[in-house]
Amino acid sequence: MNKNFRITILGSGNVAEHLGKAFFNAGHNIHQIYSRNPITAKELALVLNAIYINSVEDIDAEADIYIFCVKDSAIVDIVNKFPIKNKLLVHTSGSVEMDIFKSKTSNQGVFYPLQSFVKGKDVDFNNIPICLEYSNEESLKILELLAYSLSKNIYKINSEQRLILHIAAVFVCNFTNYMYAVAEELTKQYEIPYELLLPLIEETAQRVKHISPSKAQTGPAVRNDINIISKHEQTLQQNADFLELYRIITKQIKTRHIK
Amino acid sequence: MNKNFRITILGSGNVAEHLGKAFFNAGHNIHQIYSRNPITAKELALVLNAIYINSVEDIDAEADIYIFCVKDSAIVDIVNKFPIKNKLLVHTSGSVEMDIFKSKTSNQGVFYPLQSFVKGKDVDFNNIPICLEYSNEESLKILELLAYSLSKNIYKINSEQRLILHIAAVFVCNFTNYMYAVAEELTKQYEIPYELLLPLIEETAQRVKHISPSKAQTGPAVRNDINIISKHEQTLQQNADFLELYRIITKQIKTRHIK
Repeated sequence: MNKNFRITILGSGNVAEHLGKAFFNAGHNIHQIYSRNPITAKELALVLNAIYINSVEDIDAEADIYIFCVKDSAIVDIVNKFPIKNKLLVHTSGSVEMDIFKSKTSNQGVFYPLQSFVKGKDVDFNNIPICLEYSNEESLKILELLAYSLSKNIYKINSEQRLILHIAAVFVCNFTNYMYAVAEELTKQYEIPYELLLPLIEETAQRVKHISPSKAQTGPAVRNDINIISKHEQTLQQNADFLELYRIITKQIKTRHIK
Repeated sequence: MNKNFRITILGSGNVAEHLGKAFFNAGHNIHQIYSRNPITAKELALVLNAIYINSVEDIDAEADIYIFCVKDSAIVDIVNKFPIKNKLLVHTSGSVEMDIFKSKTSNQGVFYPLQSFVKGKDVDFNNIPICLEYSNEESLKILELLAYSLSKNIYKINSEQRLILHIAAVFVCNFTNYMYAVAEELTKQYEIPYELLLPLIEETAQRVKHISPSKAQTGPAVRNDINIISKHEQTLQQNADFLELYRIITKQIKTRHIK
């Protein structure tokens, strides 16, 4: 069953842009785009053939779904000013409770795509897991139709699980990227081309598709190779932050692997 | 120019297995395999059509190159007992000085493939960076021919740079894998399928091929989103290790990005 919805988007940042384009390309009708940033919002409204509005009061009742793609801290403010009742209100946040909308509707939901979006780099939604939460069966039905119009990986995830997933995502995306950044900074300091590390980055990510990360652990810490570890720690003396990180992660890997 | 060498391999672990197979497939002749582990060594010798020996004294002078693929701490012991002089002796370690061989030869080198090898999972050498170090032009000539027979990415890297590369590799491979392992442990505790994280792991690794990691940083820390960070820290109270890690990496990302 292929049903097209009329969607109003709140926000014009990365999530709004990527989700908006995905909805548009899947044949849905983007109705209004509300944002306090007229530059990004007008641009997005143009691309998505939608109406740009910059006041919450101008949000009208014509949409089937209202999707909040704003900063977590901005949601409650917009909900307080939200001018219509009993519509399906949905947010896209990993760490906000679903019932933040309860003063305005009993049709609430969460539409949480487990992916990291950066400006200007398109992602293929087809494989992105979309985590749904819903206040009633009617909301679920609409959210499922909407989600399956973008991706084949749809999961029902409650608020507690979603918060854990968000934390797990911080580790595998944001913190992993920081590991890359540390390596980049080190190679720069010693005039080594950073590109040398790319095949290793790729192999490390590919490997855990087939082997559990706890079984895929390699390196001096898991081998308890004291000589190498102390040589690395000595070399990192001038980088206090990197040394601290090296010591703590090495210690934690040892705790889990060395009996 | 395609030249086939006669190679003796010291060691029968992951590096010996992967390098040995790659040399064999590139048409080189694997002469002897020395190892103190008869099980893995005999198996490898069989696959590579080589002679298995379990005593350093039995190493003969017939090979063009002797490649040490043993633990860092084992190299010096084998060198002390090494029965022949003035051969080309090479190791594959990230953190050992080249001149560990100087008591036996002036033809020394390092053949350091920047990749992580796990048992049973084949890797394509063609894209693996191979870092060479060499004591003289004659050694370089042989090492270059050997390296280019496996890969198109060959770099001349001195001992100090190699040590830094090794540390950088620990961050992008071993420590990154630990980030994945933390996420796996968290999802298990809350009965969430770990597979949900795989598209995000992949996207995070792919992204840094095109964008510098320092520019690709996303997440609550770089946004200085205090509410989310404190919610995550509260949720991690029962996991002391993960909380410690979350705090330190968040702090370091903030130091670099929040002005």
